Amino acid sequence: MIDPAAIEAAARRLIPHIRRTPVLHLGPGELPGGAEVTLKLEFLQHTGSFKPRGAFNTLLTQAVAPAGVVAASGGNHGAAVAFAAQRLGTAATIFVPQPTPATKVARIRFYGATVVQGGAAYSEALEACRAHQARTGALDVHAYDQESVLAGQGTVGREFEHDAPGLTHVLVAVGGGGLIGGVAAWYGTGSTQVVAVEPEACPTLHAARLAGRPAPVATGGIAADSLGARQAGGLTFEIAQRAGIECVLVSDDEIRAAQTWLWDRLRLIAEPGGATALAALLDGAWKPPPGARVGVVLCGANTDPATVSWGGEV
Amino acid sequence: MIDPAAIEAAARRLIPHIRRTPVLHLGPGELPGGAEVTLKLEFLQHTGSFKPRGAFNTLLTQAVAPAGVVAASGGNHGAAVAFAAQRLGTAATIFVPQPTPATKVARIRFYGATVVQGGAAYSEALEACRAHQARTGALDVHAYDQESVLAGQGTVGREFEHDAPGLTHVLVAVGGGGLIGGVAAWYGTGSTQVVAVEPEACPTLHAARLAGRPAPVATGGIAADSLGARQAGGLTFEIAQRAGIECVLVSDDEIRAAQTWLWDRLRLIAEPGGATALAALLDGAWKPPPGARVGVVLCGANTDPATVSWGGEV
Repeated sequence: MIDPAAIEAAARRLIPHIRRTPVLHLGPGELPGGAEVTLKLEFLQHTGSFKPRGAFNTLLTQAVAPAGVVAASGGNHGAAVAFAAQRLGTAATIFVPQPTPATKVARIRFYGATVVQGGAAYSEALEACRAHQARTGALDVHAYDQESVLAGQGTVGREFEHDAPGLTHVLVAVGGGGLIGGVAAWYGTGSTQVVAVEPEACPTLHAARLAGRPAPVATGGIAADSLGARQAGGLTFEIAQRAGIECVLVSDDEIRAAQTWLWDRLRLIAEPGGATALAALLDGAWKPPPGARVGVVLCGANTDPATVSWGGEV
Repeated sequence: MIDPAAIEAAARRLIPHIRRTPVLHLGPGELPGGAEVTLKLEFLQHTGSFKPRGAFNTLLTQAVAPAGVVAASGGNHGAAVAFAAQRLGTAATIFVPQPTPATKVARIRFYGATVVQGGAAYSEALEACRAHQARTGALDVHAYDQESVLAGQGTVGREFEHDAPGLTHVLVAVGGGGLIGGVAAWYGTGSTQVVAVEPEACPTLHAARLAGRPAPVATGGIAADSLGARQAGGLTFEIAQRAGIECVLVSDDEIRAAQTWLWDRLRLIAEPGGATALAALLDGAWKPPPGARVGVVLCGANTDPATVSWGGEV
């Protein structure tokens, strides 16, 4: 059961291992819709995404076998598990699909992990990972559908509420749903509504909603390397149903425009998955109600800065 | 006289106009030397540098003539004056030297200012600016050597002390010295020592120290577009002398390495001048004494992200 108490416990455990990422308040005139917006700069986390939170919380609460830890990942989760394993003195083997960007593979190797690359999509890397786990007894750190992972990611919500109290809405990008599951578990059924934003090309939570349970989707588009899970996690789906989370879809063009906006207005680089939540606000896929105080999690920046260029604004 | 009271007054004046930029704490193991380091992410300011603070404080405290405002700038100050003038409904004319990067010129124009580009260096743009001022009566906003400008920039120090109390040292990059003059005026002769970091290729404060007064230097190197003032400002020189500010020089290679480090470890882009203060810490040009709690201002990010590439680390 992922509840605020589990997230509090994770937060205490994580203090020596993660960065407390700051928030940035933007005035009501800075974004369309006139809402006050607060960004959580979570891409400043070690390894460039929120993922070390769940990785550390898992490695610190579960027995690690002599074979070390194993994970399947589109890249960010793998880098986080490799980073956490290295810091805690454990061997790591990371399975990544063939399309994983070379910089992400290099970063996983930089943290001392063994990388096994193969398969067209995350789901195939996951199968290979599971076979390895069964063979070796290594501790499997799932990219999202695991209680210790969700509790770790939930510390993003805990920090956000502390540093930006009184938000009416928090927008979070969804791949498998580890981040939004943890954040929604933190906010619970209180006065802050969590809003899920997914790329049209990887609509896992949307599909789960339609099917009434996690259901496989085709994954593609520019954010697939971080949000391209085959289906939403079961734990997250339950949390999302209970909280009545609103789901919003954005196009690849809107995601690219959000990346450009972040550079033009704030001199920040986000990877496509890291800019996806903001895209919903910028392009009106999600419209803040009057008086809304909106939080947006910028959750990753593992991209080549050269892919983000000045949009001709400021 | 720039004192903390003047900076407090500026801070109140600036509230509706500037972003309160966040800080990021890094643990003792994250940088060489084992010091605890806190970064002030001031490049998140409007226009991508700290400069709007001084620009707004000047426009809000001095009479603006019908001819509007005028400024000479390597780029960042010009963008800030144009931004402030546009927000306050005043015309702006900005004089920039020929080598100013095209993106900086475009940004100044985006804010509705008239740009006059000419001369090999900032000093020539400044002469043209002064001639224009004398002819038209426009309000001249100096890039650094003006009390209202220093008091505005000093609000960086005020916020830094509030958000990161107990720093023993604060490292600040120096061009003409507007930022360090304001920050040093804020900290005064208290327990926080302000350290000046300059590129070897633009050593204005260093030269002033040697000469006993502001003295012209040759300017060049990769940070010249933001730190390439011909000489240190007189106001800043007095403040630096009174506070006994330590001066440190860094090479262009060290500045480039600091830019790479910021991307590798934090997924942040800084322009060369914005990474200069950090360079002194990373490469040991300045060594933190045992127990130091070091603050570093990242003061600008107006560069092409494609010039910053992955250094092969993390």
